[in-house]
Amino acid sequence: MSTLISHSLFPKSFLAREEEMAAGFAKECAVVTHYRLKTVPGQGLVVDPDSKLEEELVVRPTSETIIWNTYRHWIQSYRDLPLLINQWANVVRWEMRTRLFLRTAEFLWQEGHTAHATQKEAEEEAHRMLEVYRSFAEDWMAMPVLTGPKTEGQKFPGAIYTLCIEAMMQDRRALQAGTSHFLGQNFAKAFDVKFQNQHGELEYAWATSWGVSTRLIGGLIMTHSDDQGLVLPPRVSPIHAVIVPIFKKPEEKEQVLAAAHRLATALKQGVEKQLHSWLNFEPVVVKVDDREQYQPGFKFNEWELRGVPIRIELGPKDLANESCVLARRDIPGKEGKEMGISLSAAPARMAELLQEIQKNLFQRAKKFRDDNSYEVNSYDEFKEKIENPGGFLWAHWDGTRETEDRIAAETKATIRCVPFHRPDEKGKCILTGRPSQGRVVFAKAY
Amino acid sequence: MSTLISHSLFPKSFLAREEEMAAGFAKECAVVTHYRLKTVPGQGLVVDPDSKLEEELVVRPTSETIIWNTYRHWIQSYRDLPLLINQWANVVRWEMRTRLFLRTAEFLWQEGHTAHATQKEAEEEAHRMLEVYRSFAEDWMAMPVLTGPKTEGQKFPGAIYTLCIEAMMQDRRALQAGTSHFLGQNFAKAFDVKFQNQHGELEYAWATSWGVSTRLIGGLIMTHSDDQGLVLPPRVSPIHAVIVPIFKKPEEKEQVLAAAHRLATALKQGVEKQLHSWLNFEPVVVKVDDREQYQPGFKFNEWELRGVPIRIELGPKDLANESCVLARRDIPGKEGKEMGISLSAAPARMAELLQEIQKNLFQRAKKFRDDNSYEVNSYDEFKEKIENPGGFLWAHWDGTRETEDRIAAETKATIRCVPFHRPDEKGKCILTGRPSQGRVVFAKAY
Repeated sequence: MSTLISHSLFPKSFLAREEEMAAGFAKECAVVTHYRLKTVPGQGLVVDPDSKLEEELVVRPTSETIIWNTYRHWIQSYRDLPLLINQWANVVRWEMRTRLFLRTAEFLWQEGHTAHATQKEAEEEAHRMLEVYRSFAEDWMAMPVLTGPKTEGQKFPGAIYTLCIEAMMQDRRALQAGTSHFLGQNFAKAFDVKFQNQHGELEYAWATSWGVSTRLIGGLIMTHSDDQGLVLPPRVSPIHAVIVPIFKKPEEKEQVLAAAHRLATALKQGVEKQLHSWLNFEPVVVKVDDREQYQPGFKFNEWELRGVPIRIELGPKDLANESCVLARRDIPGKEGKEMGISLSAAPARMAELLQEIQKNLFQRAKKFRDDNSYEVNSYDEFKEKIENPGGFLWAHWDGTRETEDRIAAETKATIRCVPFHRPDEKGKCILTGRPSQGRVVFAKAY
Repeated sequence: MSTLISHSLFPKSFLAREEEMAAGFAKECAVVTHYRLKTVPGQGLVVDPDSKLEEELVVRPTSETIIWNTYRHWIQSYRDLPLLINQWANVVRWEMRTRLFLRTAEFLWQEGHTAHATQKEAEEEAHRMLEVYRSFAEDWMAMPVLTGPKTEGQKFPGAIYTLCIEAMMQDRRALQAGTSHFLGQNFAKAFDVKFQNQHGELEYAWATSWGVSTRLIGGLIMTHSDDQGLVLPPRVSPIHAVIVPIFKKPEEKEQVLAAAHRLATALKQGVEKQLHSWLNFEPVVVKVDDREQYQPGFKFNEWELRGVPIRIELGPKDLANESCVLARRDIPGKEGKEMGISLSAAPARMAELLQEIQKNLFQRAKKFRDDNSYEVNSYDEFKEKIENPGGFLWAHWDGTRETEDRIAAETKATIRCVPFHRPDEKGKCILTGRPSQGRVVFAKAY
């Protein structure tokens, strides 16, 4: 049987081994029950009842069960640890209400799974990966995030605790953008993964898992975009600048196009030199939009729609002045358009501008989040604010699942995170008045 | 409903749209019928009957249906063509008899799908991709392949014709190593994909699809490996050479290790300079095996097992002579060991040797294939040779499905390919005596 078990399908019984995981994922599993279709005259293609599986297979909603079933064979001794497997994989979680990029029945994600000899090392790994995700979200995507553990009610099924990065979208809803789980010895026990430690004793291995998905693309769109379209942070944009040549007369065309291509080369070389490591050693891409069938105005709109950070306009008058005009995507319209700048100074200005745009996008998103974050001190205030205007509500909570569930049922707001960085302030739960060790962050979420 | 359709699952009815495809894949489909499990006391985790799907979903065995259902929305005009989408994806084809790397119920593959305005362009694309696969198999994997179309009986369900690369493994069985399909307008018609041509008329698009899978890893192993383990062609090996330092006394250790690291750097730089493009601009990797807990003999065996093309031995005597010893993996044991070579000449010798090994592996595999290929002229001879010794049998065939099926039923040999490069020789079918236009290649296959 074992060779028939493929990696994206696993036997139902695997899920049953870890109780919390079974409870958490059973309700949203695609289940394979048969392995053959057949054509029946009059009915067309139907499921062949003779192909019913003895044990149903589950399409993986996450891979801890498969990974730990494999780790059992790989881990014998402390010398085999630590162990890290990372994969990009598609997973299926049945969703009745889907939302493009944010919530789809199938999604592509990166999932990492580690095994360690000690609790301390596993916990450090869980925190290290959270920091990797935080840095990617903030430093590359320019998407500010809160970091901290989830509550018991919101953690990953099967985890001891779940750390998360949590962002605010422009509609003030929260987006869980990445998670890192400390799994304790739960999966080692469920799949009987023991190793011999340095003293010759058998111990269960310690585990973490962590993941981000293409949901980050949704997060990027909903953090920065405006009515003109996508806005891409320079550090993740596949095109850094586009040059739109402007000409009317045929004799201008050749001259302007030649100058545009020269400028593109100069910009690429100049900016690459300055920003090589800042762009993670990726090439700088400057595109010349020399399509003949479209007018410059059409092109301006199209590149705005596609989110390219910098647009450069180059026409006969600019050429006569040996200059060009830069326009930044993060400030659309006339305000984002810079005064003419000399062609020789353009590479340095473009490099500055890319960094300015990256910084501005982050700061603007952070300001938006902070402007839409409130300390609330009563349940009435909470219920009012969560409806209008919405956002992140920092409130005291008594730490119980019961209170969290009641607030969620009554307001649709959940605790997004118990922030690492929160004021040291004891208080009273907004619902029960019982003592609270500090504020947690509530929001309506995707 | 459409947002519920994820990319690895598609409705059963999609398969039904293209008749040949339905007939070809229906018998090996994993079918999702439910989307929820539930816990029932006494029974554990069971399929929730209330979650039965109105229409069952098929786990993709290949993605033409999903791709062409999408292309319908993308293709309106000849300006949208040609269109090429390539993806690495996992697919499931239910297999009762699986074989590691070669035949598994789920496998990871690369599948490309193109749409064209003309038949000519699509056919050219199908041939172009076959050549890409041939070149990768022969020039990189050092695995010789026959190229040509499959017969009607062996072609991809839904294709007009299938081109293939076909290799011989060391047990003389054939391995289909990659395929490229000309699909005609079959999928355009099944999914109603029409475009407006330059004259304003509506036409169905022309299609190709093509793929190779991780089966190539199996092919690599079964083409080159020997009793000592894996043998990797230098152009695809992740490690190009390993240096095993040899020392007994503690005072030798420091000196030998330092020299080993200096040599590794010199080899890397020297070989990279010479073979940069030959290695597709990948870095040259020279590993120093400085593990203290293992003896040199153990290390020699381990690196042989792992297939590293070149082993370099460096001990105090070699150092005193300013030399080292190279051993080639393709010729194991003492015969593969070269005379000591001066340290200064080692980089040039390593570069030569990598090229020699690459060439030798290809030529050896090709000789093996040719030595195990026979022209057979009677059915008795065919039946005898296919059992003992086995291999590729070049035989005349009358071109009918009926004959092919009967030969397959009686001998388990199938027509692997109608080779592009075959002698221009008419003859008589070995089974029926009817006229044949040329020999085709029969073999038992994986």
